[in-house]
Amino acid sequence: MRSLVIGLDGDDTLWRNEEHFAVSQEMFRSLLLPYVESDYDLDGRLAANEKANLELFGYGVKGFTLSMVETAIEVTGGRITAAEIQKLLDRGKEMLATPVELLPGVAEAVSTLSERYPLILVTKGDLFNQEQKLARSGLGDLFWRIEIVSEKDPATYRRILRRDSIDPGDFVMVGNSVRSDVLPVLAIGARAVHVPAELTWVHEHAQHNGDVPTLGSLSELPAWLAENG
Amino acid sequence: MRSLVIGLDGDDTLWRNEEHFAVSQEMFRSLLLPYVESDYDLDGRLAANEKANLELFGYGVKGFTLSMVETAIEVTGGRITAAEIQKLLDRGKEMLATPVELLPGVAEAVSTLSERYPLILVTKGDLFNQEQKLARSGLGDLFWRIEIVSEKDPATYRRILRRDSIDPGDFVMVGNSVRSDVLPVLAIGARAVHVPAELTWVHEHAQHNGDVPTLGSLSELPAWLAENG
Repeated sequence: MRSLVIGLDGDDTLWRNEEHFAVSQEMFRSLLLPYVESDYDLDGRLAANEKANLELFGYGVKGFTLSMVETAIEVTGGRITAAEIQKLLDRGKEMLATPVELLPGVAEAVSTLSERYPLILVTKGDLFNQEQKLARSGLGDLFWRIEIVSEKDPATYRRILRRDSIDPGDFVMVGNSVRSDVLPVLAIGARAVHVPAELTWVHEHAQHNGDVPTLGSLSELPAWLAENG
Repeated sequence: MRSLVIGLDGDDTLWRNEEHFAVSQEMFRSLLLPYVESDYDLDGRLAANEKANLELFGYGVKGFTLSMVETAIEVTGGRITAAEIQKLLDRGKEMLATPVELLPGVAEAVSTLSERYPLILVTKGDLFNQEQKLARSGLGDLFWRIEIVSEKDPATYRRILRRDSIDPGDFVMVGNSVRSDVLPVLAIGARAVHVPAELTWVHEHAQHNGDVPTLGSLSELPAWLAENG
């Protein structure tokens, strides 16, 4: 029997993430609502700036915080006060300091998986913040490899597998984002398992063709692998 | 003969970095001078906030930009305008978009070294920005390994060497920072070569005991290794 290597995504696959951004956006809306017409699309403006800034900032909380400040200045025509901008900075810091909350069943699932397969964490975002989250998660020692990457595209997955001479046919990637955890993995001839999250960042939205195995929770993964591995 | 592996630092060893921060600090001072007493230590206040924020932000331009904004709000008692804060954001973006300028002799030195030794880039900071700088440097293909790390301490160097089964006795790290490129490397029983930069960030200031080989420029490294390797 071939030995499988399992890749696991971090944000919104192992631990809650997107809902912390949702809380920030709610706060951002409340702060700016007095400055704009009631039907102004604050979320849309912030999302557009975030996307435009990705090529300079990459992913993560620090870039998101800078985008919030920039958008706040823009939509208020510079009328936002320094005290209000400080609130956005404080929220960014609060996000970075937030304790890691594992999703239901994750601790047991990762522990079980680690006894059967070499596990690679493949996670995207700020290096420093992702390392902190992993440390706070208590799961660090269960992983064989930690890969914190700036983008999850086919080239990234190819590089990760090549580095440890892993055949794509022996690799299964598991995560909540079709765009980052499923499509680029299929593109290099490896397999992917989709575990949808309650909330997924709009930038990660994508469709797969329906043939991708989809689980309701990471708890189902050990049994699925035993059957389909 | 044993085969050496050479580690090279990025910022201020291969390419100019600290002087871009110096330009930002100059701009920060000019912007805030009208708000403070003429003898107020703006640099000191910014450096203190940067240091306090390191445990949340880690190293890099995005965290520096957030610290500039926060310090500006603090030292003006909230009187700074949104338009002035936008200038700080714009400067942060400008830093992230700055073309990479290699230090004198670096292109030739790294090319020569790459023909003789496996080279590892060991650089600290924002993953995304460091990858961009490496890509812009044109040196990417000359490195055997790229290690972008959040902190350069003994544990980090130990992990890098262990990952590729490199004996510390076969590793020579070369960089401008005594604190990051020399002391932790000596601590794990490997060797270090110090190539001082014109400007080094105050946070990186440290002393070594004078026994560390020190070169005037990276151009001298190939000859030094040939003699002392």
